[in-house]
Amino acid sequence: MKIGFIGLGIMGSRMAANLLQAGHDLVVHNRTKAKADALLAGGATWAETPTAAARASDVLITILAHPQAVEDVAFGENGLLDALPVGALWIDCSTVHPAFTRRMAGEATARGLRFMDAPVAGSKHQAANAELLFFVGGDAADVALAQPLFGVMGHKTVHVGAAGMGVSMKVVVNHMLATAMAAFAEGAALGQALGISQEALFGVLIGGATAAPFLARKRPMFETGEYEVQFPLKWMHKDLHMVAEAAYETGVPMPVSNAAKELYQLAAHSGLGDEDFAALYRFLNG
Amino acid sequence: MKIGFIGLGIMGSRMAANLLQAGHDLVVHNRTKAKADALLAGGATWAETPTAAARASDVLITILAHPQAVEDVAFGENGLLDALPVGALWIDCSTVHPAFTRRMAGEATARGLRFMDAPVAGSKHQAANAELLFFVGGDAADVALAQPLFGVMGHKTVHVGAAGMGVSMKVVVNHMLATAMAAFAEGAALGQALGISQEALFGVLIGGATAAPFLARKRPMFETGEYEVQFPLKWMHKDLHMVAEAAYETGVPMPVSNAAKELYQLAAHSGLGDEDFAALYRFLNG
Amino acid sequence: MKIGFIGLGIMGSRMAANLLQAGHDLVVHNRTKAKADALLAGGATWAETPTAAARASDVLITILAHPQAVEDVAFGENGLLDALPVGALWIDCSTVHPAFTRRMAGEATARGLRFMDAPVAGSKHQAANAELLFFVGGDAADVALAQPLFGVMGHKTVHVGAAGMGVSMKVVVNHMLATAMAAFAEGAALGQALGISQEALFGVLIGGATAAPFLARKRPMFETGEYEVQFPLKWMHKDLHMVAEAAYETGVPMPVSNAAKELYQLAAHSGLGDEDFAALYRFLNG
Amino acid sequence: MKIGFIGLGIMGSRMAANLLQAGHDLVVHNRTKAKADALLAGGATWAETPTAAARASDVLITILAHPQAVEDVAFGENGLLDALPVGALWIDCSTVHPAFTRRMAGEATARGLRFMDAPVAGSKHQAANAELLFFVGGDAADVALAQPLFGVMGHKTVHVGAAGMGVSMKVVVNHMLATAMAAFAEGAALGQALGISQEALFGVLIGGATAAPFLARKRPMFETGEYEVQFPLKWMHKDLHMVAEAAYETGVPMPVSNAAKELYQLAAHSGLGDEDFAALYRFLNG
Repeated sequence: MKIGFIGLGIMGSRMAANLLQAGHDLVVHNRTKAKADALLAGGATWAETPTAAARASDVLITILAHPQAVEDVAFGENGLLDALPVGALWIDCSTVHPAFTRRMAGEATARGLRFMDAPVAGSKHQAANAELLFFVGGDAADVALAQPLFGVMGHKTVHVGAAGMGVSMKVVVNHMLATAMAAFAEGAALGQALGISQEALFGVLIGGATAAPFLARKRPMFETGEYEVQFPLKWMHKDLHMVAEAAYETGVPMPVSNAAKELYQLAAHSGLGDEDFAALYRFLNG
Repeated sequence: MKIGFIGLGIMGSRMAANLLQAGHDLVVHNRTKAKADALLAGGATWAETPTAAARASDVLITILAHPQAVEDVAFGENGLLDALPVGALWIDCSTVHPAFTRRMAGEATARGLRFMDAPVAGSKHQAANAELLFFVGGDAADVALAQPLFGVMGHKTVHVGAAGMGVSMKVVVNHMLATAMAAFAEGAALGQALGISQEALFGVLIGGATAAPFLARKRPMFETGEYEVQFPLKWMHKDLHMVAEAAYETGVPMPVSNAAKELYQLAAHSGLGDEDFAALYRFLNG
Repeated sequence: MKIGFIGLGIMGSRMAANLLQAGHDLVVHNRTKAKADALLAGGATWAETPTAAARASDVLITILAHPQAVEDVAFGENGLLDALPVGALWIDCSTVHPAFTRRMAGEATARGLRFMDAPVAGSKHQAANAELLFFVGGDAADVALAQPLFGVMGHKTVHVGAAGMGVSMKVVVNHMLATAMAAFAEGAALGQALGISQEALFGVLIGGATAAPFLARKRPMFETGEYEVQFPLKWMHKDLHMVAEAAYETGVPMPVSNAAKELYQLAAHSGLGDEDFAALYRFLNG
Repeated sequence: MKIGFIGLGIMGSRMAANLLQAGHDLVVHNRTKAKADALLAGGATWAETPTAAARASDVLITILAHPQAVEDVAFGENGLLDALPVGALWIDCSTVHPAFTRRMAGEATARGLRFMDAPVAGSKHQAANAELLFFVGGDAADVALAQPLFGVMGHKTVHVGAAGMGVSMKVVVNHMLATAMAAFAEGAALGQALGISQEALFGVLIGGATAAPFLARKRPMFETGEYEVQFPLKWMHKDLHMVAEAAYETGVPMPVSNAAKELYQLAAHSGLGDEDFAALYRFLNG
């Protein structure tokens, strides 16, 4: 089985490396070729275009930054959609929004392709250590087929439902992550302004009943002020926009999520977009 | 040592019962006398006014709904402040805001009294089972003196700092609770509108890395739609107003907290103020 | 010159009627044919599909509810894009968002068509009385060509810039309208809750220096509680989502606009989506 | 009739100057004496304390920055409340919140004093030119008595109702001002990011149907980038906090007002607190 892989950013490069190391036959493409160097040295084949990658693939995995990037590699003369062999499976791991995913699924189906959305929870280290969590939308048979690949890149797969449902769960999860970080950054800023030491504050909040457990992993960032990028702040803002898209599509009021979205936008506007999203702490505690 | 106790609501009545059961000599007062019946039957003494309770007390505990209520029992002709014996200790367990607490501390000190703020984390069941967590602001010697009382009513005491620091920690903690619930209610509403089952959603969110652990205790409420009051929604709105007061005093921007505050206000406006604050879930998922 | 017109809702039906009355040769299409009855009786020609309308047109005007609706009539086998004669001019009067408009402009240009975005300010009565204000994006020559049509449907045309700029101005204007209404509804609710009479409040606010002048036209709605639809509340929510799209595209923080967006969503969620957007007043003053 | 005047800031100094110029017998006090120099040179008498000013006054006017400042000059050993002669009239022109004002009214009445709240609309230039608008709460007889003073300092008096109602109207008006400025700053930032020129934007918005008329007076600030203080941004944030207090007291949801409050707080946090509140435009357009 030939596997295509398009999108070699922070996440994709590590996911592809795990596939390669597990012995899979991999053809890769990325907008910037340099990011493929390590994979090519490890035995992957280079494809000049999405089309070239698609032609050579039984299963094609994409993980790209936003809907427009997916649209760009899917359509057009160098696109993947018209190049995939009939019956091939396109797995999109990008975090987009459900209506977009359902549109991609429709375009794929109309061409005799199979489609699955499989966005991941986890960031840089989880990608490197094959500890990602996959939220999958698609047919059960396709999920079964893809499970060996998911198993090489992650440690858990949740089959949420039909195409679009993986992304649906993902936008909910990222809403949770983003709002938890924003609430923590605000709470910590308030506590410190009131004179509570960082140590006392973290002692009560992090690891306690009121703060999301993932914040414990970010604690060294808050303490050192070094926000080595695991998940860029500008992407979290983007993901909250995906949440807002999904909320608009379904008519759900989300005032807190939207307030968090604008707070990330303000932080990005102040120059923190390329740091880890935990830098929201610095934005408010600076 | 004679202990006065003013404020026999959901929390206060259970805290006083634990003190009584531990053998303390208790004089109690409440705006509505009926709420004192069980305590009086158990051996507590009734005081007709805050003044009467104060006169009889070496240590006086208050736990009231908001700053105005504290102000009402503290000042005026039936107030406690001018009635407490010099050297007595006033412990205010109310959730108010730091500037208010420091004002009370100042008024107490000016009269030769000692003062401690000791708001509690936990709700009805924790109060009943002596599992409260006390955030305490005050002199170390006073905290040591009061610790046996805290030990009877709770299972942990955090001495945060000088007077006002207990309330400071409390407003931060309640900001965390309130925003976590609001974010969860929004996220669950979105997920269900997108077609994810409640079971699948809860399976991923509750107990996971992205949701505050306390939400697990509220899960039966979300599932049954019965919001038996542990902590009324209108009080959470009040507490978010205390957060906003503290943020104003210190100049900390808290857009997410304020958005949550208004969401609780909208829910209260729609008639849910007297249900548990978890009813925010119903407000958005209804 | 043959003019096609697609989209005969509250606005479009009145705009088309003015074109017809001015003697233009009109071919019309609408999803629901019944809405075309008066126009057909007045001499317009019916087209069964967007394709049929496009084939017969030198200038084709569309005014539809949202980007997806525009996309649906533009593309596909019954779509207008592949049916318009080379050199024809497509004028989209829909309120969408700038990136979408630029995409449409690109699709049109690639087919040898001309494109102009010309969303309108004004609602039902302005449409009926030819008092609309057109915000136009496109080539100056095309604007000059279309001006006689705009002059029949409105009383003022602002040529903002190249394709996409008409919609750009429109999203800004609708952000202003929506936030002004939201701020007024909140302020009036506060004032009345504080005991100020509606008359005294309106006397100070409406027509004064602090409230947007358009609110004077809505005053009878606030006073009578009858919100006869001029511009549906759910469309204002949609337009604020267009604003959020444009803000996302450009990286502009808009926390107030997003808070207003969610307030309209809450009002729609409570059942007011099909009333005039002034019903936000009732949502908060009810 | 002897008039006391406490609070000689941007507004108070100009209001007092107009009283003096009209021939009134004026005794003044201010925390910083230097700000009284021009008035003393013009014939006003200096009072070392609020008490001294109060003792000498038949009518005492206060205009201070926030409730705490009013409380500080009202109570305590140097306070005005216990020093005003029985029957004297205290006119508080400070922008505070209604519950606070009613408390002051109660304290005054309990001492046999008369009380009136009379906050002003207008800023520096209106204060200098006697063009202020007074929103007055109090007894009609007292309002009639004070009208000659209001007439010297302003050009219009609106008697809203009993004590507290002047402040009630004022918080509503300032909510309108603050949200209008915030919405305009966001809209202009969006428009310019989308490529619309400042001139085209201002041409459509300022003086149009969708923007509050007072924005025309601020236009030179937006154009020059010079925000000479007429009304400091930090005070507008304070006033929005007063709005939030009033909304809390009355249970009115105001999500848009609260979002604006936090936007001003973020702007102040970034260093713009002492510039005119129009600098919010720079905060978002910078």
